Amino acid sequence: MIDLLSTRTRYIESSELAEIVSKIESLVNRGYRVIPFAVGEPDPSAIPIKELSKILADILAENPSSILYTPTEGIEDLRKEIANFIYRYDGYRVDYDNIIVTSGATLAIDLILRLFIDPGDIVIVENPSYINTIHALKSYGAKIIGVKMDSRGMDTYALEEILRSMDSNRVKLVYTMPLGQNPTGISMDLDRRRHLLELASQYNFIIVEDTAYNYLVLDNIYIPSLKSMDRERRVISVGTLSKVMGTGFRVGWTVLEEPIKSMAISIKQTVDFCAPAISQYLALEFLRRGLIDISIDRSRSIYRAKRDVLIEAVNTYISEAIYVKPIAGMFIMLHLPGIDGIKFAKELIEKYHVALLPGKPFYIDNSGRESIRICFARPSIEDIEIGIRYIADLYRSYISRS
Amino acid sequence: MIDLLSTRTRYIESSELAEIVSKIESLVNRGYRVIPFAVGEPDPSAIPIKELSKILADILAENPSSILYTPTEGIEDLRKEIANFIYRYDGYRVDYDNIIVTSGATLAIDLILRLFIDPGDIVIVENPSYINTIHALKSYGAKIIGVKMDSRGMDTYALEEILRSMDSNRVKLVYTMPLGQNPTGISMDLDRRRHLLELASQYNFIIVEDTAYNYLVLDNIYIPSLKSMDRERRVISVGTLSKVMGTGFRVGWTVLEEPIKSMAISIKQTVDFCAPAISQYLALEFLRRGLIDISIDRSRSIYRAKRDVLIEAVNTYISEAIYVKPIAGMFIMLHLPGIDGIKFAKELIEKYHVALLPGKPFYIDNSGRESIRICFARPSIEDIEIGIRYIADLYRSYISRS
Repeated sequence: MIDLLSTRTRYIESSELAEIVSKIESLVNRGYRVIPFAVGEPDPSAIPIKELSKILADILAENPSSILYTPTEGIEDLRKEIANFIYRYDGYRVDYDNIIVTSGATLAIDLILRLFIDPGDIVIVENPSYINTIHALKSYGAKIIGVKMDSRGMDTYALEEILRSMDSNRVKLVYTMPLGQNPTGISMDLDRRRHLLELASQYNFIIVEDTAYNYLVLDNIYIPSLKSMDRERRVISVGTLSKVMGTGFRVGWTVLEEPIKSMAISIKQTVDFCAPAISQYLALEFLRRGLIDISIDRSRSIYRAKRDVLIEAVNTYISEAIYVKPIAGMFIMLHLPGIDGIKFAKELIEKYHVALLPGKPFYIDNSGRESIRICFARPSIEDIEIGIRYIADLYRSYISRS
Repeated sequence: MIDLLSTRTRYIESSELAEIVSKIESLVNRGYRVIPFAVGEPDPSAIPIKELSKILADILAENPSSILYTPTEGIEDLRKEIANFIYRYDGYRVDYDNIIVTSGATLAIDLILRLFIDPGDIVIVENPSYINTIHALKSYGAKIIGVKMDSRGMDTYALEEILRSMDSNRVKLVYTMPLGQNPTGISMDLDRRRHLLELASQYNFIIVEDTAYNYLVLDNIYIPSLKSMDRERRVISVGTLSKVMGTGFRVGWTVLEEPIKSMAISIKQTVDFCAPAISQYLALEFLRRGLIDISIDRSRSIYRAKRDVLIEAVNTYISEAIYVKPIAGMFIMLHLPGIDGIKFAKELIEKYHVALLPGKPFYIDNSGRESIRICFARPSIEDIEIGIRYIADLYRSYISRS
């Protein structure tokens, strides 16, 4: 069969993360206690699981048709609730008819890339960026350019230089996760957002705004979403309930206008047919009954406390660490001068049973060697402190070896 | 934004079915009673919904992690249960590690096409064929050739002539739904299956076997699956629980061997990340507790009774109708000499509130004008009889007009 594979299949690379992830899974499956800094998943205790469980039982009992297909674009009532949610949390009004409910934000991003990307098209992302989007871009044969970040988010002045120096017509889109970015935890400030929108207008590209962590703002700040600042309809917003309802339900969305919306629905039908019905009905009640607000409030306060403990432990035990303190989301990236992050992560899981990911696979170029990504949502406060001390221990032994 | 769309987007066609589907939905949404021959969905009364509902409530209560991601290839225990199910119903042994759980068979087919199809590649399908696969093939830029069918399934002698007459190296794959095919209800007999496998070997192509209706055999017959007869590993099997557990859960699978399996998982991660966790846990219990056997037995007996009433009504009221009696699945295609199926379906929903689909959009060429597709799973026995009488009424008026 291998002789029959498509040329696009050549874009598939084996992930540098596979070995580390398999080490982690193998320990967990064998019943070892592992400190979980690796996967970007919510703390189940932040989510009202009992209520979800009750709703789930009622859905099928009250509506036998909920075992059947929904419209490809999603259940109408859910799309209305999402429109309302977007207004309250992302700060812009949207007609529910422009919302397409997808099998997670992952599928929304895939759909957008299918609609817009030809092999060889240039796509700009933050460097580092969300690894799943990087892989998706590669699978579509996009030429990916990374723009460096600082504590204020994507360096839009560096982006401007890139745009100036090249045939700008060839840049199709800029993908950004501007709040609590995965993997760095960095948020883009207001000036940078304005500048990015100006550049989109000047150089005619689309901005894909991934709002996965918009609902996990940890400090008392407000930064408007890019989409809410978008006067030229250049921003395509992609959202998800994964981080506040549960990653396993696969309920995401995107907002598209005609004629692109209809094209997206046509393609979507051949990919997922519809987002899972049971998850859609659950999401509908989660939003309608205000459980989402409870979940968001609880998540913010839990993750804020965890972040604060983490930062204090890092400052106490690893004074050499360079990082940006996250004001949103569930990630932080530590730069530990002198380490090889991939080797470091392997040794850390083997010797200390602390699971985290190296930063390098999230970078477009070959940088990020000295970085590690920590998700602080899952482990307990106690385990965060212990985990950081283990990381500090391993780091000390690294430094003394070199 | 339109100026930035990809070239692949040009393959997107607006569906000829859109207008009819929208007429049906509009009536249903306004509360009209419609006889549902249109959508290929199971009868909820055939499915043990109360048990599903109880299981759903328990899943979250007993395992809070079930709100989180599963491995991209699916929950290990579910893959083991599917391997067991395949052995019992599809008649071949498979290592669970070769099973990938997908967001419905739809996503499995999309994945396979992504892995194998380059624009311009030739793919052969039955004429007519499953409309969603036709659309997926078009979106990948495949050149689609249809092979005529008769009462014994795909005419493999016609296929052989096609293969002989062309540069056979360019045929990548043959897609078939060999049992209870959607849209015709026709099943491929044993001789044709043998012949198809011989041709695959001789002309070096892959067979994608869509087993969606394998578990809905209505008569007391046994036809082995293509995959169970496959000695050269040329058959890729795609399965789903949609028709026996519910179409909305989105639990399907495909069976792949290394190295293609790993490539498929890499791509899958960028499309659905994982199949919906809640649906996977539900499917696990559905299989483990033997509910699937109850559902299959009940479905077979319900659909057999509905098919028999339908056939008798057609013979009684529309003697001109040409059809093949389905021995499996939930579809039948009627050829009504003299009609234009698209106009017929529109008039039928408007005047009689009977919903069905014209056959033409399922055909690759411009044939199928006189055909209509009927799904007999959803309507009650009484409504099947009434629906066929309405179809006969409209047909009489058509004939007298021409």
